[in-house]
Amino acid sequence: MAGGIGSRFWPYSRNHRPKQFLDFFGTGRSLLQMTIDRIRPLVPIENVLIVTNIDYRDLILEQIPDMRKEQVLCEPARRNTAPCIAYAVAHIRAITDKANIIVASSDALILNETEFQRIVSKGLDFVSENDVLLTLGMKPTRPETGYGYIQFEAADSDFLRVKTFTEKPNAELAEVFLKSGEFLWNAGIFLWNLQTIWSSFREFLPDIAGPFERGAAKMGTTEEEAFIQSMFASLPKVSIDYGIMEKAQNVYVLPADFGWSDLGTWGSLYDLSDKDKEDNVVLHCEANLYESQNNVVALESGKLAVIQGLDGYIVAESDGVLLICKKNEEQRIRQFVERADELYNGRFS
Amino acid sequence: MAGGIGSRFWPYSRNHRPKQFLDFFGTGRSLLQMTIDRIRPLVPIENVLIVTNIDYRDLILEQIPDMRKEQVLCEPARRNTAPCIAYAVAHIRAITDKANIIVASSDALILNETEFQRIVSKGLDFVSENDVLLTLGMKPTRPETGYGYIQFEAADSDFLRVKTFTEKPNAELAEVFLKSGEFLWNAGIFLWNLQTIWSSFREFLPDIAGPFERGAAKMGTTEEEAFIQSMFASLPKVSIDYGIMEKAQNVYVLPADFGWSDLGTWGSLYDLSDKDKEDNVVLHCEANLYESQNNVVALESGKLAVIQGLDGYIVAESDGVLLICKKNEEQRIRQFVERADELYNGRFS
Repeated sequence: MAGGIGSRFWPYSRNHRPKQFLDFFGTGRSLLQMTIDRIRPLVPIENVLIVTNIDYRDLILEQIPDMRKEQVLCEPARRNTAPCIAYAVAHIRAITDKANIIVASSDALILNETEFQRIVSKGLDFVSENDVLLTLGMKPTRPETGYGYIQFEAADSDFLRVKTFTEKPNAELAEVFLKSGEFLWNAGIFLWNLQTIWSSFREFLPDIAGPFERGAAKMGTTEEEAFIQSMFASLPKVSIDYGIMEKAQNVYVLPADFGWSDLGTWGSLYDLSDKDKEDNVVLHCEANLYESQNNVVALESGKLAVIQGLDGYIVAESDGVLLICKKNEEQRIRQFVERADELYNGRFS
Repeated sequence: MAGGIGSRFWPYSRNHRPKQFLDFFGTGRSLLQMTIDRIRPLVPIENVLIVTNIDYRDLILEQIPDMRKEQVLCEPARRNTAPCIAYAVAHIRAITDKANIIVASSDALILNETEFQRIVSKGLDFVSENDVLLTLGMKPTRPETGYGYIQFEAADSDFLRVKTFTEKPNAELAEVFLKSGEFLWNAGIFLWNLQTIWSSFREFLPDIAGPFERGAAKMGTTEEEAFIQSMFASLPKVSIDYGIMEKAQNVYVLPADFGWSDLGTWGSLYDLSDKDKEDNVVLHCEANLYESQNNVVALESGKLAVIQGLDGYIVAESDGVLLICKKNEEQRIRQFVERADELYNGRFS
């Protein structure tokens, strides 16, 4: 999945260049490229599909030059994850009736790729032989309030039955979750086989499965694009978590620990990054900091920031926009972007 | 005089483009152009000389297209104002033995040009008939600690004898100066005739007058440039205030009130500029400010600043450098520039 617009990372992330396409850590690889890199040992590249917005197709083909145009599925509208996944699954159904599927977002960070590959291989073995929906659960390391949690039933197995999915908890609850040892972070990485997930769509999201089944003859043909254009925008906006995972009875979680972060916000990027003696994080640019602590500073590469007397701020500049905002107010960035959109007619978004 | 490097306005002012060449207020005219504009009704343009660094000659000829190259006198080294003025005066001596001279810097702001012209005309009349050194004294409007002061002897005349020149006072003293009514701000705008100033150079700064007199035959010829190259760097570094004005007995001041500011710092620019309801000043760029007061925000034109939770800061960005600094720490900007010079070998200065 590579259709997000990443507005929480504005102004670094922009409409024409959302965060999955950015080289966040200056390694020379974008988050999307890193996602593909870590999938390659598990899945032949010709079996990878990327679902995205039409605007990003060229950028994807540029970043992943050995993918064919046909592997990039374009959504005509944003309809959350369930229609996005249904589109890819319907495309696979036109090719084969037997497949194991990994669903992953293209904008997460995973530090230990070997462990990722070990866990995913193990998960694929499990779903290939069982009629289950498997999600990977990250072992929590802190009472994070920015993630969803998965509660599991203790069992003498690596694969644990899911009791509940819980949305982002408040600080107090997150502390309880962490201490209980019964909760894992929901990373949104799913494994299942083709039959199981399609049955689940039919059962829990017939408004989505139905239209795809009625057009099944067109999927995988030259008519696919026109068919998707005609029906996609009328699909309900619903997440795969809410639409299927929270309702199905055959949901399992495989605990994992491979240094995952959803890299959702400047704050999570700050937490992940190397800090100087005063706990400042400097990305891409040069920075001279005086009497300044706990900041994340990210200007375009080659630029210099000279900062005096700031504590706990985001200072981010990209492509004509400078953002200065307290780290603990970062949830308001979306609102700032919306306001700027109104004022400047989308010029800075 | 247009040779300054304006480091207190870094990063807006840069080595390759000091503040006198910048369009500070977005009016379409640089400070230098505004200086020339206000002099034009008083002095034919062919009688104007600009003393500057060789690096800025082309920029000057571009900004003032009706000046000839010969009117731009280039200092091979920075030697403060006395050698700079002596150079121009020696150049004039090669052309004529009778002239009235206005000396002014190219980076001050004057709001009331008509009053400026009235005062300067009156001053020129006075110096053309008297063997005096005249300076313009600005009526102080606040206890400014950033300016030098001139104390005068009360008299029943517009032209007052100068008692003392005082360097930048502390806050307490500035308050006393303001209340006494006997002090004016030293704007560094001087009027005198050719004979009087050259006699003063001979008397008080023979180390400067001497070398110019020995080369007098070369001044105004094709040999002038080589002659200046050979001798200028060995002249003593001294200001006209310290070298002559504080020592001569025939120094007069003409009080004036034409909306002058030396525009020396971000703080003075802030004080001068229009403010929004929260007392923020925004220059050149767009800005959306949230919970922010008393800031001066100056990004390059066409850019957007989104700022949350800042009080009393300078936020200035230009040509690859972002400065964020408390307004009341702005005297440290020079030190920041020096540090950046050391670290990056002059790349950002």
